[in-house]
Amino acid sequence: MFRPFFENLLGILWHNDIIPVLENNTIVFVLDVGAGFVAGSGHGMRKGQKMTRIVVIGGSAAGPKAAARARRLDEKAEITIIQKSPDLSMASCGYPYYVGGFFDDRNQLLCSPTGVVRDSKFFLAAKGITARTSTEAISIDRANKLVKVKDLTSQHIEDLPYDKLILANGARPRMPQVPGLGLDGITTLQSMQDADYLRKIADEKKIKKAVVIGGGLIGIETCEALHLAGIEITIVEMLPQLLSFLDPEMAKLVENHVRSKNANVIGNNGLAEFLGKDGKLVGVKLQNGAEIDCQLAVVAIGVIPNSDLAASAGLETGKTGGVIVNNYMQTSDPDIYAIGDCIETVNRITGQKVHAPYGDLANLQGRIAGENAIVGNVKEYPGTIQTGICKVFDYSAGSTGLSERNARRAGIEDFETVINASPDKPGFMKGLLLVSKLVVDRKTRKILGAQCVGPGDVSKQIAEWAVAIMGGLTVEDYCNADLPYAPPFSLAIDHSIATAHLMQNKLDGLMAGISAEELKHLIDTGSIPTILDVRASDEYEVMRLGIGEKLIPLGALRKRLNEMPADKNAPIICYCKISLRGYEAARVLVGNGYTNVRVLEGGIMAWPYPREK
Amino acid sequence: MFRPFFENLLGILWHNDIIPVLENNTIVFVLDVGAGFVAGSGHGMRKGQKMTRIVVIGGSAAGPKAAARARRLDEKAEITIIQKSPDLSMASCGYPYYVGGFFDDRNQLLCSPTGVVRDSKFFLAAKGITARTSTEAISIDRANKLVKVKDLTSQHIEDLPYDKLILANGARPRMPQVPGLGLDGITTLQSMQDADYLRKIADEKKIKKAVVIGGGLIGIETCEALHLAGIEITIVEMLPQLLSFLDPEMAKLVENHVRSKNANVIGNNGLAEFLGKDGKLVGVKLQNGAEIDCQLAVVAIGVIPNSDLAASAGLETGKTGGVIVNNYMQTSDPDIYAIGDCIETVNRITGQKVHAPYGDLANLQGRIAGENAIVGNVKEYPGTIQTGICKVFDYSAGSTGLSERNARRAGIEDFETVINASPDKPGFMKGLLLVSKLVVDRKTRKILGAQCVGPGDVSKQIAEWAVAIMGGLTVEDYCNADLPYAPPFSLAIDHSIATAHLMQNKLDGLMAGISAEELKHLIDTGSIPTILDVRASDEYEVMRLGIGEKLIPLGALRKRLNEMPADKNAPIICYCKISLRGYEAARVLVGNGYTNVRVLEGGIMAWPYPREK
Repeated sequence: MFRPFFENLLGILWHNDIIPVLENNTIVFVLDVGAGFVAGSGHGMRKGQKMTRIVVIGGSAAGPKAAARARRLDEKAEITIIQKSPDLSMASCGYPYYVGGFFDDRNQLLCSPTGVVRDSKFFLAAKGITARTSTEAISIDRANKLVKVKDLTSQHIEDLPYDKLILANGARPRMPQVPGLGLDGITTLQSMQDADYLRKIADEKKIKKAVVIGGGLIGIETCEALHLAGIEITIVEMLPQLLSFLDPEMAKLVENHVRSKNANVIGNNGLAEFLGKDGKLVGVKLQNGAEIDCQLAVVAIGVIPNSDLAASAGLETGKTGGVIVNNYMQTSDPDIYAIGDCIETVNRITGQKVHAPYGDLANLQGRIAGENAIVGNVKEYPGTIQTGICKVFDYSAGSTGLSERNARRAGIEDFETVINASPDKPGFMKGLLLVSKLVVDRKTRKILGAQCVGPGDVSKQIAEWAVAIMGGLTVEDYCNADLPYAPPFSLAIDHSIATAHLMQNKLDGLMAGISAEELKHLIDTGSIPTILDVRASDEYEVMRLGIGEKLIPLGALRKRLNEMPADKNAPIICYCKISLRGYEAARVLVGNGYTNVRVLEGGIMAWPYPREK
Repeated sequence: MFRPFFENLLGILWHNDIIPVLENNTIVFVLDVGAGFVAGSGHGMRKGQKMTRIVVIGGSAAGPKAAARARRLDEKAEITIIQKSPDLSMASCGYPYYVGGFFDDRNQLLCSPTGVVRDSKFFLAAKGITARTSTEAISIDRANKLVKVKDLTSQHIEDLPYDKLILANGARPRMPQVPGLGLDGITTLQSMQDADYLRKIADEKKIKKAVVIGGGLIGIETCEALHLAGIEITIVEMLPQLLSFLDPEMAKLVENHVRSKNANVIGNNGLAEFLGKDGKLVGVKLQNGAEIDCQLAVVAIGVIPNSDLAASAGLETGKTGGVIVNNYMQTSDPDIYAIGDCIETVNRITGQKVHAPYGDLANLQGRIAGENAIVGNVKEYPGTIQTGICKVFDYSAGSTGLSERNARRAGIEDFETVINASPDKPGFMKGLLLVSKLVVDRKTRKILGAQCVGPGDVSKQIAEWAVAIMGGLTVEDYCNADLPYAPPFSLAIDHSIATAHLMQNKLDGLMAGISAEELKHLIDTGSIPTILDVRASDEYEVMRLGIGEKLIPLGALRKRLNEMPADKNAPIICYCKISLRGYEAARVLVGNGYTNVRVLEGGIMAWPYPREK
């Protein structure tokens, strides 16, 4: 990495025509013999030097970022972007919001912050970068450092020489291999063309029914977008739950909200066939034989890294299908970098290789590759903690680090989880009730993962946990976090800190928890414990689970201990709306000698199953 | 700290009447001889044991939290809260929002989340805690472990015995020692009574003009509240700036916003006298002799820790005036804990003692003292990084860690700062433009502090930085942060990450910055450099600084280098609206051999001085 001392050195040496070059973090001093690669922080070309030629394949997110970063570090490098699509720098994560009518000007998806469309002309004028759109990279000749490219308009083929090549090929939608895939009315939401197609459908208001295949991030966002256009939606998901980055009980809360918007959700069921008439989609048939009428089907069952170009050039690819890179974003060929959705990266917590096709990571990786390609390997990318977030109608749902399921999958056994339902702000500031789930390593007490679901914006909660995970914070650290507090922004004890407090209580043995899932299982299998709702009777009249619970308000509990089981070792479950009073009740019972008392985590608000009232 | 192994131990030992007691993190095993303090996680009283008597002085924030935590850990302890005011557990940070009419039900300031007023009856029924309101603690007899208390209604005085005493005396408003202080129409906003008084004024709409003395958090919040009631406000501040937790150029952006709401701001000027007629306030006289008509004055010039009771009992107090405590929240008497606004705590970054009267910290400290008083010293409070946030009309302003000024005050010299102006979300999702300032240690590259000002809610930005500081993150760590990204929540590169990127560019020598303050100084002193606005001409027509700048759009710069100074070492300053293009222009110039190019940090959006257009 450049350090100030290096900068000074650079200044001193420069005037003596001695060029320091950073290679693999070693500074090499080279006498300026008038040719070759010049390191430094963007100093101009000197007479007789060869220009560094950077070719970037891919012009969506990672590619343009890498190209722009390279330019800022070397004003004289020859930088070319090869882009198959006619558009550049598309804000592809914005497609669902364009389709949903959050804004109307299509150009906003292609614009710089000041409203200039980022086309080839813009790239040349503002950045001195040649961007060749509608041009496909066909093959890489690594021995001669050439990329064969084809102009898709003229069909002209030529070889582009490079000193450093940066692959940002992106990913393509996974498609279900079922009959009828060629019918009219089947699309993905992956390109500007897809966005245009769906926006037209939304505007025309002709189509009444649509099916979204896949209940992940894009599926949910597409569902909302089409729902806003008045289309009746059914989401079909192969897994038993939506949003697989969430644990099932958290995903169930999201599903309940989706259903409350009159969108249909069919889980545990895959697509068997697209049904057509006269070449047009008229329905889908599911694996269980059910048929659903629809005139539109949007496929959103994930993406596959575009690593074919890399693989056919002999570059290593991994089990995830992505191109393998080191921390410098370098492929198995040191002159070729790869970034964005076409690579596999490392999960920082588990060390496992993952495919993490997120626009934010693509940009970070692009910045690193752009610098390393020019300056040598000075910057490292540490990997992902797989942070994700999704707007779901009036809710949002996010996750960072490991879910309980992913912790288990990664072979982590000794962890603890807790669910917290509590408001984000005081009631008098119109606080909204969020539900969070925290996953913590029992031994080190380090935070492994967090999920949050609720109305409004849960991104602050997720961001807080993401930084905590990156900083290696323990539960104890977080219990005493000094966060920005004022009533318009949070509770005195922020929802995230309250979650950490609950976790600490569990780890300290002050609170034994039971999840809604577990309690439901107990009830379903007939081994019903004593269940206490400790709210007031007026609250009980308005809303209640109706699972055989007994109502004893917290304030009366100490006087009504005689109503508890005679056997002090008999199982008792306490809860209230959010299980804060439930926890206090449990402490009262434990303090009076009951040994088997558990708190229903998150209380009624985290109960994802139907309730009596 | 309790660990699971300890919990198991506890269970095993319990049945053998051997009681493990945690003392100073050492587990001591005691045979149950039928008396004395019993450790453990809230196990019930056993025959013949003496109840632990906990007395808590103070019933606002820290006190009730400590009492409730103590109760959860020991169902049988005798817990008493002594509260001078008639109210308990007031949400005092909510007063300005009650006055401002954000909500109308006064009880919401006193309620539990389910709407039950937290009065003595509530504390007794729900928590088994005796809360004595309108009762003053007069003195502490440490030798005999007694607190002398006076019932302010009956004037009855009695001695309360304690095993552990917890002081949560709070703080009182600092009052200006000037003539006229006794006039009618002068208040603070520190108690429910103050809130009632001001809300009445706001509702009655009789008063036309008010002065707020002090431009800190409470002053600004009060200004907004009264402004919403249609009262013409003048803020009088002794310092040259509002919100002293911000650096001056950031505070100036806040001041500009306050002024845009037609509130007057008078800085660099103190109060000399309250002017009265017939016992009623009619105006204030300032130290510079100016007089301002007003019928109401709200004093908000800070608070003083209520440490007199502690001091007169011989407990140590510090230079800040607060009671001295260790990490366990223990005073110089091991049987007395102190928490909240009456103590001084430690700044985690500088190690210096500070008075940090924040409601969130009071709660965290209360939780720790409540536990330690019951279980022995098992939990530690690590101190504050002095995170603060404030709503300012349509803006918010926050800070965490060290400002540039506080870094200097703490004797830190080798730091770097950067200012970033950029949106929080994509333009198509109605992104708002935030301005952030980051302070970083040059050697370690660790983040020392961050400030953020802008429309909407900056609390996510501040929370992200707060956790980063607590986690010891470096600029490099943050440059690759994996945060929750989707267009409704952030840009692909979050504003905070963009800030870290800028900082890295500065530290790496890629960007030399100049602050608005510094450039203004150059202009004012006549040493005007070449100043380049690199936006498009249509943008220039709408808004411009008019400080002698030359307009050369970025896209034309490479062709118009001949318009640059002949001397390649001559100073050049580049900027645009937010100085992103300004930075790119600087890179173009540096790449073409100009050696003295700086970027105006934050561009026009962070320019706090008047502009031509």
